[in-house]
Amino acid sequence: MSGRLMVVGLGPGDAGGLTRDAEEALRAAEALYGYGPYLDRVPAREGQARFPSDNREERGRAEAALRHAAQGADVAVVSGGDPGVFAMAASVCEAIEAGPDAWRALEIAIIPGITAMLAVAARAGAPLGHDFCAISLSDNLKPWELIERRLDAAAAAGFVIALYNPVSRARPWQLGKALAVLSQRLSGATPIILGRAVGRSDETLTITTLDRAAGLSADMATLIIVGSKETRVIARPGRSPLVYTPRATERVSA
Amino acid sequence: MSGRLMVVGLGPGDAGGLTRDAEEALRAAEALYGYGPYLDRVPAREGQARFPSDNREERGRAEAALRHAAQGADVAVVSGGDPGVFAMAASVCEAIEAGPDAWRALEIAIIPGITAMLAVAARAGAPLGHDFCAISLSDNLKPWELIERRLDAAAAAGFVIALYNPVSRARPWQLGKALAVLSQRLSGATPIILGRAVGRSDETLTITTLDRAAGLSADMATLIIVGSKETRVIARPGRSPLVYTPRATERVSA
Repeated sequence: MSGRLMVVGLGPGDAGGLTRDAEEALRAAEALYGYGPYLDRVPAREGQARFPSDNREERGRAEAALRHAAQGADVAVVSGGDPGVFAMAASVCEAIEAGPDAWRALEIAIIPGITAMLAVAARAGAPLGHDFCAISLSDNLKPWELIERRLDAAAAAGFVIALYNPVSRARPWQLGKALAVLSQRLSGATPIILGRAVGRSDETLTITTLDRAAGLSADMATLIIVGSKETRVIARPGRSPLVYTPRATERVSA
Repeated sequence: MSGRLMVVGLGPGDAGGLTRDAEEALRAAEALYGYGPYLDRVPAREGQARFPSDNREERGRAEAALRHAAQGADVAVVSGGDPGVFAMAASVCEAIEAGPDAWRALEIAIIPGITAMLAVAARAGAPLGHDFCAISLSDNLKPWELIERRLDAAAAAGFVIALYNPVSRARPWQLGKALAVLSQRLSGATPIILGRAVGRSDETLTITTLDRAAGLSADMATLIIVGSKETRVIARPGRSPLVYTPRATERVSA
């Protein structure tokens, strides 16, 4: 008897963003673990147990799911977006490394999903069309100085930058500070995209510039893309503009 | 009569990686444009025209598809992985910006997909669990000096690095040079993942270290993930190791 732990990416929002592999994994699971609102996105299936937990309890959730799988069950941990990007896959790996030997013997299957920056980029055009990076603004698990250093390095080297976890109730000032750091390297005219709840019925997309971004509201459901010097905006009559970063660099950009 | 241009991400390989939205878009399209081997992955549908083109003809393909949509048709351009990451969405935006006004009036719908780095990361564990970047090693459209500068900046700032387009017949030396640049910043023990054709029946996954990576073969179907100082490898008896980057930074890593 050997269990399996699946870590399943739900994509950005509604079921349209789910892959066939993710649907299949969710159907196969005997038990589902996850943050409550993510579990609510998975259609109920008879005989499938559900174990919702709070957003902040990633490690405890991973351990509970591993214990369950180690009893021989087919268990899925669900994750918004892609489980590998600032989400549950790393928590599961951390728990396995620190846990009993039996957890290392389990079959682990990670099912990728559409991560927020890809969903927001697709709505806006192709802002990630050239070299880019992803930075979490959460300083719960890393020092703020390191985040500032990475923002500065990324802007200086000409990367487009996707900002995950820009704001939470406990972290009200970090986004403003991050935009200030970026403003030291980038022009005020640099295109900025704020995508909130993209893929859900209440989605919003805001296209603005760096010098106007500080006044805009954001929360944990917001993903922000900061353009590079190369990023361009195409105005379209009667339609929202397209934002894209060309594949070609005309000049050394930074 | 108004046409629509969809740019559809097929994900990494087989149909399991396709989202429902992508399937729906492919069904709705009257005409499909794309690189031949990508079109071959889309099931045939009666009455749906297909226009395969060579890998290097992105701009011409985008223009042909836009001309077709501007005649009032529902046209899809297919893209491997995610269309927004070193793929067709930026080519379409470039063509729109340079093209006739009628192209700006078209409805443009970009359907995201699982990009290669997410697929490879999922097979290996959670190497992208912390801040990371994506760099194309192709110097067809940007100067090699800029690529070296970005590699150096990313490694110095502690990003995990996903390398797209590592090698082609016309670009045989770039990967070796890139690994040499990274070796000036990173220990030889830094974990490296080479994923080839991940999501396809002939997929291979190689987990090694930076000091051994130069000898390994790679091609245009290979995606390489270079760990940071924080990236860890969990050995598992009878299973391939898990590679992950913890969410927490124990110390300022670089």
